[in-house]
Formats: sequence, structure tokens, C-alpha cells
Amino acid sequence: MARQSMREEIVDAAVAQFHSKGYNAAGVKDITDAAGTPKGSFYNHFESKESLAVVALERYGASRRLQDLAASDIAPLVRLRKHFEFLRDETVDAGFARGCLIGNFGAEVADHSETIRTGVRESLGHWASMISGALVEAQQAGTVRADLDPEKTARFLLNAWEGTLIAARSSRSGDAFDDFFDTAFGTLLAPHSEQAQP
Amino acid sequence: MARQSMREEIVDAAVAQFHSKGYNAAGVKDITDAAGTPKGSFYNHFESKESLAVVALERYGASRRLQDLAASDIAPLVRLRKHFEFLRDETVDAGFARGCLIGNFGAEVADHSETIRTGVRESLGHWASMISGALVEAQQAGTVRADLDPEKTARFLLNAWEGTLIAARSSRSGDAFDDFFDTAFGTLLAPHSEQAQP
Repeated sequence: MARQSMREEIVDAAVAQFHSKGYNAAGVKDITDAAGTPKGSFYNHFESKESLAVVALERYGASRRLQDLAASDIAPLVRLRKHFEFLRDETVDAGFARGCLIGNFGAEVADHSETIRTGVRESLGHWASMISGALVEAQQAGTVRADLDPEKTARFLLNAWEGTLIAARSSRSGDAFDDFFDTAFGTLLAPHSEQAQP
Repeated sequence: MARQSMREEIVDAAVAQFHSKGYNAAGVKDITDAAGTPKGSFYNHFESKESLAVVALERYGASRRLQDLAASDIAPLVRLRKHFEFLRDETVDAGFARGCLIGNFGAEVADHSETIRTGVRESLGHWASMISGALVEAQQAGTVRADLDPEKTARFLLNAWEGTLIAARSSRSGDAFDDFFDTAFGTLLAPHSEQAQP
């Protein structure tokens, strides 16, 4: 039981350290120091920093509130917008720092670790499938353009979001979020109306 | 003259090392080894790895062929598509690795270095302004939706591209590029037509 708790503390510390510093800049000692555990105990719980990174990615993914995308008591397009608003607010609260751990690992380590690359690919795939589910419902409700391919559009939206976080971090401002919401929700997803015709 | 040449070799090596390994994983010794220069000579040319990174970012930016976005002998929407096709082909040729140095620095180091963050912000800003210029011309030519804000749309497209590179690297496939081209060019930018009505 004590061991389980130490393992959990290491995973929580790893999420925070990887997220704030990056994969390469966060050493095993940084992580065990942050967890308040001896560095020597690390390898009782994890084979490598790489294998810890995959567990950290799963724990981070579970904090993305993806289940909210399927909450049928809220209109699907509203759910989708609230999802990205939650993610935006989290980044604003962090002073526009940290971004998304999944995207960060994708940019920094995906080329160099097949294990982490697989974790990133699966995380993005699951996330996109949840977004796609909300898009399908929104199309049925008539609030999203009916001629969009929901799976393709979901992957595109998620990728646009990951790039938006990079822009927000580089400018330390929320302007990139405005670009995302206005363009994605105001234009891309919006059903055609007479008024919007050129 | 010899010194100038050594400096140039260090910058070229830095672009390649930062691009393939990432900022933190590419040490000064990796860079000087790749440049074939003694490590001790590094600080004759650069104050720090950080200041070298900013010069590397400028050199990388100059290789993005942004001037092609203003080439008035080619139809503006064709120019824009060819620009992203050039970037896509470069990544395909690299085995879906490396991504964009600007986005990589944004994800890995923007939070930790004001100097590099400024470089990333300015690089993205200049790039978006070149995309915006092509969009304005395409709107005048009637090949891009007239009701889009060209500056906002340009920034959104560039961010979507940066995220697309993360997805392509994580899956080591060109599927994310198809999502980008189909959604950006096939849907977002496309003028409304009767046929596309839901």
C-alpha cells in the first residue's frame, strides 16, 4: 500500500515536471525530489524515464475531461465549445505556459522514442474520436455544417488546438485562442446561412 | 573571413542539431562537433546556446520560402497551397520527423527563455502576415471566401499547420496532412457554392 502510494506520487510529480519543464529538461532526480521520494526508489517502480512518461501521458489524458464531450444533457456544439474553453482557461490560469503535455511530447520526443510516440498517437486518436462523436451529434442537431466529415474535422480541430497553444505560449496572450474560437466555431463548423454568403 | 566561416558553420550545424534533437537534447558540444569546430571556439562567436538558438531560428525561417507566398506570377490560392505542399514534402522526405523548428522551440523552450519566446513569436507573426497577404489577394480573385478575416484566418491556418506536424510525427504518416489540406482548402477557405449547401 505504501509502495502504491509512492508510485502514484512519482506519477503525479512526473506529470507536473514534464509539463512545466519538458521531457529532456525534467530529470529523474527532479521528479523524485518533487515527489519527496528517494531517487534510488525510482527504479523499483519504473523501468525508465521513458516508461514513466507513458504513464504520465495517460494520467494527463485522463485530466482532459474528455467524458464531458459525451455529456448528453448539454447540446453537442455547446459541449464542444465548453471543452476548448476549459482547456483555454487552464492555460490562461497557468500564465500562458505549459501548453498540452501530449503536444509537447509530440514536438519534443516523438521522433526519438517509439514508446512515447505511440502514447502520443493513441492519446490524440482517442481525443479526436471524442470530438468526432460530439460533431456527429451536432450535425444531427443542425448546429454544425452537415457536409463536414466529422472524423477528419475532429482531427483537424485538435491539431489546430495544439498549434494554437504554441502561439499562445509564444505571445503570452490569449489572441490565438480568439483566432481559434472565431475561425473554428464562427466559420468552419457554422452551417451556411444566407447572411454569411459572400 | 575564416572566423565568419566558422560562425556560419556553427549556425548551420545548430539548425540541424536543434531541428533533429530538440533544444535541450542538442548540447553545445553536439553542435560544435557537427560543425567540425573546437568546442572552445563556440564562445568566441556566441554568448550562449540561447543566443545561438535565436540566430538558428532566423536561418531556419529564411528556409521556409515565405517569399513564394508573394510571387505574383502564380494565382494566390495556388501559391498558398504550394507553400504548404512544400512544407509537407519536406516532412515526408524526413521520414515524418523533425517538424518545424519554430513550433518545436515554441513547445519546448518558449516558457523558459524570453529571448527564444520572442524569436518564436516574431517568426510566427512574420509567417502569418505573408499567408495573410496571399489570402487577401485570393479573396480579391474570388478564390477564397470573401467573409473571412484574412489576418485571423492566416494565424489560425499557421497554428493548424504546426499542430498538423505534431500529429504527422506521432503517427509517422501523411494522414494529418490530408486532414489539413481537405479541411483548410476544401472547406474553410472555399467560397460558398450552391453545391456545398447542406
